[in-house]
This record gives sequence, structure tokens and C-alpha cells, in this order.
Amino acid sequence: MLIVAERINASRKAVRAALEAQDAAAIQQEARAQAAAGAHYIDVNGGTFPGREPELLSWLVDVVQEVTDRPLCLDSPDAQALAAALPRVKARPVMLNSINLERERFDRILALAVEYRAKVIALCQGEGVPASSAAQKVELASELVERLTRAGLPLDDLYVDPLVFPLGTDPESGVATLEAIERIMRGFPGVHTICGLTNVSHGLPARKLVNRTFLVAAMGRGMDAAIVDPTDAQLMSAIQAAEAVLGRDEYCMGFIEAFRDGRIVA
Amino acid sequence: MLIVAERINASRKAVRAALEAQDAAAIQQEARAQAAAGAHYIDVNGGTFPGREPELLSWLVDVVQEVTDRPLCLDSPDAQALAAALPRVKARPVMLNSINLERERFDRILALAVEYRAKVIALCQGEGVPASSAAQKVELASELVERLTRAGLPLDDLYVDPLVFPLGTDPESGVATLEAIERIMRGFPGVHTICGLTNVSHGLPARKLVNRTFLVAAMGRGMDAAIVDPTDAQLMSAIQAAEAVLGRDEYCMGFIEAFRDGRIVA
Repeated sequence: MLIVAERINASRKAVRAALEAQDAAAIQQEARAQAAAGAHYIDVNGGTFPGREPELLSWLVDVVQEVTDRPLCLDSPDAQALAAALPRVKARPVMLNSINLERERFDRILALAVEYRAKVIALCQGEGVPASSAAQKVELASELVERLTRAGLPLDDLYVDPLVFPLGTDPESGVATLEAIERIMRGFPGVHTICGLTNVSHGLPARKLVNRTFLVAAMGRGMDAAIVDPTDAQLMSAIQAAEAVLGRDEYCMGFIEAFRDGRIVA
Repeated sequence: MLIVAERINASRKAVRAALEAQDAAAIQQEARAQAAAGAHYIDVNGGTFPGREPELLSWLVDVVQEVTDRPLCLDSPDAQALAAALPRVKARPVMLNSINLERERFDRILALAVEYRAKVIALCQGEGVPASSAAQKVELASELVERLTRAGLPLDDLYVDPLVFPLGTDPESGVATLEAIERIMRGFPGVHTICGLTNVSHGLPARKLVNRTFLVAAMGRGMDAAIVDPTDAQLMSAIQAAEAVLGRDEYCMGFIEAFRDGRIVA
């Protein structure tokens, strides 16, 4: 399971404050904690400051790289911000979060992905309304996969996110997303699927429980990457247990080792 | 999700002691606690006392029925014990745990199921070695479903248990069982699938976490019943969350209500 660590995101109050104050230590603490907790990629998002995104994303890249050599996931819909930050990134391959089928965003971010041989998170999202049914998600996924591979990106570098919506207002979104994950993984052997989890539980109580339950169900349908908070020990324990029950952890050695290291919260 | 409550089982030390001492109060406390925690069926197992099973199973039936009107699941491979206890059962339909394809057991328990119009847990198990692959499990499930329905049992009364084996020694058993669940549910629309959970984590640490993670994955593949301990609040919370993410809980109202009632452990 590929873990993309989500905590360094300007939508979080503490991170926004650290960005405003250029408080490198606060950001670096998040980076270290996430790397220690098992992040494979560290997502950096400097959004929400109009016009300053290139500068802030670049600053995040510099600051995080001072304390960890984990590869980064540059998180912005803005090709200009990505273009500014990409040359500073040391560990390869870098990951871009994210491309979708909106024409301008697609063309510009694809060009960067090709130039930097980046891994890419591809959202099942077109110009129009968001895809809510499994069929719509799979259709957009197919278009993304076809266009991105035709442009030269290897299938193994594509992380398709079918986009789950809040269950409280769209109760079928979980089922549609799970179905889409299975069909995408079967339809394009070698491609990856990924998901952020915060959306699914929006408006519900006990959100972390809902999030990790959805994650286990998604892993059960083949999802092999997730954008999560690796410092959430219950979530990481659920992932580790899911790898064991899903036959992705030979003789459960990874699970047993995690338990011995005190990383399993039961 | 149909919850069959597993705690009144002679394989548990406290229950065995209560059986030996004919301590009705101890059994009744288990029955009350499980009913209050959301059990739909209360399993009663009086096994391990050679020759005395008919008497002990009957005693359990009487004792449990004094404190709850939840229907019972009579748990014995022994047709004689079932035949002794069945006439004492008040709530209908009763459930029988379990039938398999061993010739004598099949014939005798089927006859009781037909006579009492019972629901039946049907184990994917023949005369020979246990079925370990998904294909073998599905083949045995098909044979069970065909023979039981041919004998007059409605599909809706059949709960097929594909039998999961310990992951620590058979790492592929989880995957095979999950695959079998999906194929059985698709192959026989209207049938049910059910699973006991204790086997899957045998020999592993953090067993409850492994059990509930497997349960969520199984629900994600269509399983609609389980033999569990309903007084395990974390397990029941995971089931409730799974119902929500799997679109089996319209607008998550069941989940929200459970949270308000203090039944969700996050």
C-alpha cells in the first residue's frame, strides 16, 4: 500500500499559520512525524494564498527536503505553482497531485509530468458535473488512462482517484466508488488507484471510523494507494490488518512485525 | 446485517463451567447482554460433553428463552442433540448451525430443517479435505444450495459459510474466502453468506483488529450475516460504519442513530 501523507496542507489551520509565518520548524515537524509513521510520499500543498502559490509551494519543497529524503507529492491544480517547485525537488520520481480532464489543466500538467517523468494522481473529473455513478467514473478513468499513456506516461505511474463524495448527502457514492476501483484495476492491469478519505465522512460523526472502514473496503476491491494521515495509528493499523487479510502480506509477517514494534492499535 | 451472537458456546471456559454447574444465571446474563447489544439470533452450543449434548443443548434452550424472545441458533453437528432441543424452541424461524456435505450429517440435519422450516448455516465442507481455493468453496456452495433448495428449503433460509482458515498458516485463505463470498452472492441471488471470525486470526496478535478488518472486507464483497460477539463494541461499530459506506444504510441514519445512542466506538 502506497501511503501519501496528507498533513502538510494549507487547508489545515496550523499549516496555514506556519505558511503565513514562514515557520519552517512547524512544517518540518509534520514532515518528520509523517516520514517516521510510514509515509512513502509526503504531500505538500501551499494553496489558498492567491498569487503566492508558486513561491509558497517552492518554500515547502525546500523546507521539507531539509529534514527528510522521502519523495514529495506536489499538491496543486495550478501548473504555474508546480512548474516553479518542480526544479527544486531532489528525490525522484516526484508525484503530481493532480491532473483531471479539464482541458487546460490536463495539457499543462501533462507536459510537466512528461518533462519530469512524474507519477500522477488522475482525478475522475471532466469539464462538467462530477462523475457520481460507477459507470461515469470508469468512463473518465478510461479516458485519463488512454490519454496519459498515449502521451508516454507508463501505466505504473498513474494513480487514478475515482473521487468519493460525502455519504451523508450521496449515500450511493461509496458503492459507486468501490465498484469503480474494482473495474479500473481489472480494466487496466498495472495501473494504480488512490483515494483521499476526508470527503466520504463529511458531515457524519465518528469520521475517522467511517474513513478507515471505507479504506478497508476500497483495499478489498483492489485499491493500492491512499492519501491519508500516517500519524493516525488506528488508520495505519487498519491498513496493516487489511494487507494481512487481503493476502498482500506473506504469512502476515508485516503485521506481526508492526505489532512487535508497537505500531498496531487494536 | 444479520448478527448471530456467539458467546454461549461451550468452547468458552466460562460457559463450559456454567454448563457443568447448571448455572442458569451465568448463561442468562450472556443471553441478555447479547440481545441488548443487537443480536438477531442467539447461538447456543452445548458441545464437548460426550453423550450429554442433547440434554445440555435442551437446557440451554430453556434457560435462554426464560430471559429473551430473540430467536435461537442451535449450534451442533449432532442431529440427535438438535432433535432433542428443537421441540422446545419457541421463536420461529429457528436457525441450525450447521449442515455440511458429509453424507450422514447432511441427510439428518436436512430432515430436521425441513420439519421445522429452519434457517440453515451451510458449511462449504465435504467428506474430504477442506476447500481452500475460491473455486472449491464455490463448487461446494453450489452443491449445498442445489441440494438444499431441491429438498424444499427456500434460498432465503440458506446462510452459506465459505469457511475461512487461519491467515498465519494459509495466507491466501482470506482472498479465497472473499472471492467465494462474491461469487456465491452473485451466483444465487437471494442466498445469504455468513462467516465466523475467530479462525481467520488464529495465531496472530491483535486478533480483534484482524477479525473486524476481515469482516469489513467480507461485507464489501456482499456478506450479509456474521457469527460474532455483539458485545464487542468496536466490532459492532465497524459493522455499522461498513453498512454506511456500503450503501446499506440510507443517508447513514442507522449510523448516526447508533452514534447518538453511544453505541459507536471510534
